[in-house]
Amino acid sequence: MKYPKRFSDLIESFETLPGIGPKTAERLAFYSINKQNKETSKKLSKAIIDAVDNICECEKCGMIADEALCEICKDDSRENKLMIVENSKDVISFEKTGAYKGRYHVLGGLISPTNGTSPEDINLDKLMRRFDENKYEEVVIATSSTIDGEITAMYIKKLLARLDIKTYRIGYGLPASTDIEYVDEITLIKSLEAKKEM
Amino acid sequence: MKYPKRFSDLIESFETLPGIGPKTAERLAFYSINKQNKETSKKLSKAIIDAVDNICECEKCGMIADEALCEICKDDSRENKLMIVENSKDVISFEKTGAYKGRYHVLGGLISPTNGTSPEDINLDKLMRRFDENKYEEVVIATSSTIDGEITAMYIKKLLARLDIKTYRIGYGLPASTDIEYVDEITLIKSLEAKKEM
Repeated sequence: MKYPKRFSDLIESFETLPGIGPKTAERLAFYSINKQNKETSKKLSKAIIDAVDNICECEKCGMIADEALCEICKDDSRENKLMIVENSKDVISFEKTGAYKGRYHVLGGLISPTNGTSPEDINLDKLMRRFDENKYEEVVIATSSTIDGEITAMYIKKLLARLDIKTYRIGYGLPASTDIEYVDEITLIKSLEAKKEM
Repeated sequence: MKYPKRFSDLIESFETLPGIGPKTAERLAFYSINKQNKETSKKLSKAIIDAVDNICECEKCGMIADEALCEICKDDSRENKLMIVENSKDVISFEKTGAYKGRYHVLGGLISPTNGTSPEDINLDKLMRRFDENKYEEVVIATSSTIDGEITAMYIKKLLARLDIKTYRIGYGLPASTDIEYVDEITLIKSLEAKKEM
């Protein structure tokens, strides 16, 4: 005997999610059909379909949105600066800091020779169009300090060279609350290069 | 700025699942709305609602089912034996072995003084009714070898004492492919008690 088809279908569906193996999928399926959890399961089902059908990318900056333009692109009070990030998650991370009041551009990926992601695969066309439409005071390229992040930052820097615009890369150095003992050499070198008068 | 409401609703819904923290929920939400995954996400949504609305417990044995009776209870070719297990997962585990051809009874829990689960909370009434309706050749109590599993097994053994029926407990001993070095004392004692002539 096997599980009823509807139940094994549910296990299989959970298994399609990243990081969910067969055992976890089975556990989630049992959890979902448990009498006590039926209401939250129905909510989850509805939340998935609602998001899949309605969440889109902001047509200007590429941030996830539920309308043509995201909240930030619609907000007239934002400073006339532009920060370029890899994905929507990064926007939320910078927003949480409260330290940046400008606009964002979401690449939706990084140029990666190893993954075969080329410049055409990321959101660069729309980025360049934004510079045609608006004169930003400055640009900060805030991609990760990984190889792909650096390659992408260098590529964008070259693209922007023909424009008369101040272009920054976010600062390198020691992460907060970090013991020097556990910091790798490259970070230490970068932190020396970025030394600041006290 | 925060995520669009539909998106944060999706993150929250994923977070209601056991073992899914905020970071994983966010990752699952992004995965679900990714263009490439929209179809599988819709499938998951449908699978959840289908299972929640249609999966029930077999009214005879307590196994999960999509009809009033589960496959095994409907199957006339099964041997007239009864195995008592904690949950539906255990049925599937024994079925996979192919070593047992009898029927099952699913308790849906174990008696547990620590969790406050009393005999009335598990599927025992229906169990006793089955003995009124049918004379089984034998009963195997196959609850776990945990404290709660043992308490439950002892309790059921007492319930069955008034019936004239052979009652077994599944065998204790060394798990397969296990190095003696790593086996706890209680298991070793049990494995000596259960020694078999070669």
